[in-house]
Amino acid sequence: MIGFAVIGYGYWGPNLVRNIAELPDARLVSVCDLKMDRLQSVKTRYPSVDITNDFEEVLRDPRVDAVAIATPVFAHFKLAMQAMMAGKHVFVEKPMASNAEEARRMVEEAARRRLVLAVDHTFIHTGAVRKMREIVEEGLGDVYYYDSVRVNLGLFQHDVSVVWDLAVHDLSIMDYVLAEKPVAVSATGMSHVTGEPENIAYLTLFFESKLIAHIHVNWLAPVKVRRTLIGGSKKMIVYDDLEPSEKIKVYDKGITLNGNPQKNGEKVYQMLVGYRTGDMYAPQLDMTEALGRELGQFIRCVENNEQPIADGHAGLRVVRILEAATQSLAQRGRIVELEQARMIA
Amino acid sequence: MIGFAVIGYGYWGPNLVRNIAELPDARLVSVCDLKMDRLQSVKTRYPSVDITNDFEEVLRDPRVDAVAIATPVFAHFKLAMQAMMAGKHVFVEKPMASNAEEARRMVEEAARRRLVLAVDHTFIHTGAVRKMREIVEEGLGDVYYYDSVRVNLGLFQHDVSVVWDLAVHDLSIMDYVLAEKPVAVSATGMSHVTGEPENIAYLTLFFESKLIAHIHVNWLAPVKVRRTLIGGSKKMIVYDDLEPSEKIKVYDKGITLNGNPQKNGEKVYQMLVGYRTGDMYAPQLDMTEALGRELGQFIRCVENNEQPIADGHAGLRVVRILEAATQSLAQRGRIVELEQARMIA
Amino acid sequence: MIGFAVIGYGYWGPNLVRNIAELPDARLVSVCDLKMDRLQSVKTRYPSVDITNDFEEVLRDPRVDAVAIATPVFAHFKLAMQAMMAGKHVFVEKPMASNAEEARRMVEEAARRRLVLAVDHTFIHTGAVRKMREIVEEGLGDVYYYDSVRVNLGLFQHDVSVVWDLAVHDLSIMDYVLAEKPVAVSATGMSHVTGEPENIAYLTLFFESKLIAHIHVNWLAPVKVRRTLIGGSKKMIVYDDLEPSEKIKVYDKGITLNGNPQKNGEKVYQMLVGYRTGDMYAPQLDMTEALGRELGQFIRCVENNEQPIADGHAGLRVVRILEAATQSLAQRGRIVELEQARMIA
Amino acid sequence: MIGFAVIGYGYWGPNLVRNIAELPDARLVSVCDLKMDRLQSVKTRYPSVDITNDFEEVLRDPRVDAVAIATPVFAHFKLAMQAMMAGKHVFVEKPMASNAEEARRMVEEAARRRLVLAVDHTFIHTGAVRKMREIVEEGLGDVYYYDSVRVNLGLFQHDVSVVWDLAVHDLSIMDYVLAEKPVAVSATGMSHVTGEPENIAYLTLFFESKLIAHIHVNWLAPVKVRRTLIGGSKKMIVYDDLEPSEKIKVYDKGITLNGNPQKNGEKVYQMLVGYRTGDMYAPQLDMTEALGRELGQFIRCVENNEQPIADGHAGLRVVRILEAATQSLAQRGRIVELEQARMIA
Repeated sequence: MIGFAVIGYGYWGPNLVRNIAELPDARLVSVCDLKMDRLQSVKTRYPSVDITNDFEEVLRDPRVDAVAIATPVFAHFKLAMQAMMAGKHVFVEKPMASNAEEARRMVEEAARRRLVLAVDHTFIHTGAVRKMREIVEEGLGDVYYYDSVRVNLGLFQHDVSVVWDLAVHDLSIMDYVLAEKPVAVSATGMSHVTGEPENIAYLTLFFESKLIAHIHVNWLAPVKVRRTLIGGSKKMIVYDDLEPSEKIKVYDKGITLNGNPQKNGEKVYQMLVGYRTGDMYAPQLDMTEALGRELGQFIRCVENNEQPIADGHAGLRVVRILEAATQSLAQRGRIVELEQARMIA
Repeated sequence: MIGFAVIGYGYWGPNLVRNIAELPDARLVSVCDLKMDRLQSVKTRYPSVDITNDFEEVLRDPRVDAVAIATPVFAHFKLAMQAMMAGKHVFVEKPMASNAEEARRMVEEAARRRLVLAVDHTFIHTGAVRKMREIVEEGLGDVYYYDSVRVNLGLFQHDVSVVWDLAVHDLSIMDYVLAEKPVAVSATGMSHVTGEPENIAYLTLFFESKLIAHIHVNWLAPVKVRRTLIGGSKKMIVYDDLEPSEKIKVYDKGITLNGNPQKNGEKVYQMLVGYRTGDMYAPQLDMTEALGRELGQFIRCVENNEQPIADGHAGLRVVRILEAATQSLAQRGRIVELEQARMIA
Repeated sequence: MIGFAVIGYGYWGPNLVRNIAELPDARLVSVCDLKMDRLQSVKTRYPSVDITNDFEEVLRDPRVDAVAIATPVFAHFKLAMQAMMAGKHVFVEKPMASNAEEARRMVEEAARRRLVLAVDHTFIHTGAVRKMREIVEEGLGDVYYYDSVRVNLGLFQHDVSVVWDLAVHDLSIMDYVLAEKPVAVSATGMSHVTGEPENIAYLTLFFESKLIAHIHVNWLAPVKVRRTLIGGSKKMIVYDDLEPSEKIKVYDKGITLNGNPQKNGEKVYQMLVGYRTGDMYAPQLDMTEALGRELGQFIRCVENNEQPIADGHAGLRVVRILEAATQSLAQRGRIVELEQARMIA
Repeated sequence: MIGFAVIGYGYWGPNLVRNIAELPDARLVSVCDLKMDRLQSVKTRYPSVDITNDFEEVLRDPRVDAVAIATPVFAHFKLAMQAMMAGKHVFVEKPMASNAEEARRMVEEAARRRLVLAVDHTFIHTGAVRKMREIVEEGLGDVYYYDSVRVNLGLFQHDVSVVWDLAVHDLSIMDYVLAEKPVAVSATGMSHVTGEPENIAYLTLFFESKLIAHIHVNWLAPVKVRRTLIGGSKKMIVYDDLEPSEKIKVYDKGITLNGNPQKNGEKVYQMLVGYRTGDMYAPQLDMTEALGRELGQFIRCVENNEQPIADGHAGLRVVRILEAATQSLAQRGRIVELEQARMIA
């Protein structure tokens, strides 16, 4: 039985509270937020849970084994570090930190203290993304590209750009699904409100192989799109998260490169590149709520001293890309290398 | 009555022949191609039309007022220049030329000889694109972004990249629909067949205003997508060319920026950015075949000595971007300025 | 302030409880169900609400002004009649009763005692259906047909057929949207599980005018469809309840009948029937939760002694059609007249 | 080499002419139509083909082995009978004849003279429908229902109702795909133009087993729908002819009936009916033009004295249902038995 405190009861906190309250191996000890009115609704629904706006109190509480941090991003680092110093395991919202340096220090702290540090990359615990990883591993062949679009008429945020708000989802999914990690990023975008961060952005990620990834995020689109294409040498995947049931479609389509890639003229070339179209199938997906599954896994990691799937390294890799993309954005697409991040990871 | 010769009878030439043959104000005089077997099928269907593989013969023929050039791109410049020197008006396939220098010389030659030089930007003559321009002009407000996706499992070409093959459509549509012209381009992409041009590419176009444009083209996608989003301060457009009837949807959605854009804290900011969602409508579109309409317009330009909508300047602007994008592609997204192109245009 | 008791806490009861608990003008006094374990979860969430499995107790409680009945259909009549005899207003789930005779007696009892009797035809309180009625009234012209499909892989019920389970939704929507009421019904269908009620059914409804309605319901479909087409002489509507935002589309399409409908030969006839296609638009819809809105309206009816939109007469009309359809089903589509129902209504 | 004459050069005749002209084993001898202006366009395109408006001339021509009849329906019987009496094989458009008696006599005449009589049920030669039949045979289990919708804003015809114009497609597909044949039909519908045939209709077909079929046809719909659902005990199919590539989707979904179907109470019943949802797949389809394939097959039947897939018996079965549906339509859904048709077939 692992005791939890949830820190931050704004947009995402209630989901953490609800899921922790329902897990058989967890005990929800307390909820901490600066705003008392928010906490009051916790008390009404969960009378036995403590509420507080004093984080120190949480840290001193011996019933609390782990904290789940769902505050604005800028506070993640400080709260997580304090928690780890107090011996608490940490489950932190994404993005893990405001910059790579913070994330790196969090990883080091967790390693030093042998604590579990998990980042809430929720999507990678959905049935759709898990199935996608399985297909990529088993049947896609060489991965040629990863292309994702995540746009809608969304709330403009003024502390982070659309990259930190939306692309973080795609980056965490991609980090989980693809074995290879990116080495450089080129990002472009625009802010349409003077003085505010970018509300539209395009990221291209380069890899050592011929794999290329691209992410399009936009808070100002008239239609909602959540669609990822993954092209491989053997199969191709379309992942449409707005489809109610067939979220993943696998196409037996592609090109076939036969024989010698040298080219002696038009005719020879046309023999070398062939086109293949076959069946499509949509595998049945596990529809379990991702967050509950993820928290259950976190608990088992704490109990058995194991590493979670989305550990601090995964969180750091994602933050490193967000940071590099932000740098590239400011210079209209200038390439930014990611090698240092790779050294750490 | 304008006399036409069609040069090149491969993929697109038959469409030119069929449309010219049906136009009341045009006479199809001859068809020229290097391969006699292709020409034979012209003779069977149009017994009164001359066939030849000698371009000089076409140039000497006084019945020919204009040539329509539908050869591979690399031959456009030479054929068009020869035709203009022989006093023929020119209707040339897109892209207009292999590089901006050639395109610039074609524009100059046409101007010097007072000949009509039209580029076959077919899409801008469709009911959908004409309606889109009308909406952008009349009701979109400030244009924030132009985002286009044109992907499918397409024929890999080995003389030009996917940018010259597919993005040329989006660039010609954008040139027609938007009043403002781009000033710089950043392009990324990848070739997945060794020694061959890029089969996937992403172009970002910058403008002097806050407008940003992005084009995604891909020959290796499992699904076919032909979709453009245009976001404005007053309305937003979705143009889906695969929709059988409702290709254009206009959304009364967006953000509203009220009062003073300065920010004094969270609350003030949230008052300043508002969200608006209203009705959507899909206007009825003219379904006339674009190419016939376009050729009819070309004839009227020849007869009245007028400039066509897609004249040499438009063709040059598009080629200049293709050229710049190719340069940027080779340097993983390095920004390439387009100012010189603007000076000419 | 109106005091409510909710009777039945199975599938739908929790929605009633939640909505009543949130309404400013309502007080949730008690919840009654035969199963104590279900009631326990009410007590946990709403500690101040009484729970009981004794309906008599509810009837004796002077704090209870109205009962909301969400039991299986067979119990509606008895519970509603007892409640009205005890002076309680009644809000009853659809279908209102097991047969038309019961429904008719409920209507009479409410009239005699001047009590409000409302039937929970939830859909008619959605923004989509209200908008649809508005369009039908204002702009559709003569209504030619109403065609609805409601199919999916649904739970097989063994006390009622798919007609009573699913078609009841379409019949209640149609009753609200169309001014004219049906006069006869022909229904066909099939049960694929021996000894069980029909799991697939087709209803055709005839009217005095040329209007025709058809409803297709199926518990055994591989895909979910919720789509209604309404054809009028001036406009046509597509209502797709699975669309996240554009649920209602209005098409300016149809035929135009010009001049004298007499026919003197092929040519004359072709002049008389014309085809019209114009714009489509999707009006913005009110997204308020229907049930809350509906209960608020019920409260105002109780306070002001008014008739609700879906009163006992509406409930009776729907039950009368369900009953007639069931008769027709048993005779492979034999027409069953609805005139008596009209006399009562 | 089989010599063909095409009779009737209106809407469909040009497709027959084009396909016959392209078949290696066929010679297009002549085209016959009453209107000389239509024939003139044949002569321009196919200078070696005879044109005539004298059907007797065609019958006397020894080069003509077979006639393809594409006239209005009312003329099929007379022309086909004359052709067979002159020893010609017959390929006739659907519906095969104006009534079942005519169709029956055509079948008898072909049998008596050992001539090939094929009905142009074009759809059954498409890759989609052939695949569907294959799946039904091999993997669907017991077939529970066949449900088809074929609606759009279509040309109102004044000699035949929407049943003879559109439902004929569904009936011919169903006749090919399902092994079992219907025994009774109930049809409802409406004409919205005074004095004209029905423009909207609903057909329910009953079988000896628990299979039920339903067809919805409508000339006055705002959207185009071409969708068929087939539900079986093991799989279910969705056939959407408007999908560009994935026209057939096979769902591993359904109910499972376990053990003894007797019912001893709620709990026992719920154990007996289970629900199953698994993968979906969309098989690759042969995209060959159906008509060319069909005519090639007809030629092989003539050469080898074999029966075509859609022979006169198939044509008669479809006409018999159309006739019965028309009778039922006139009586608002009264069931009409099809037993006599079965006796002949």
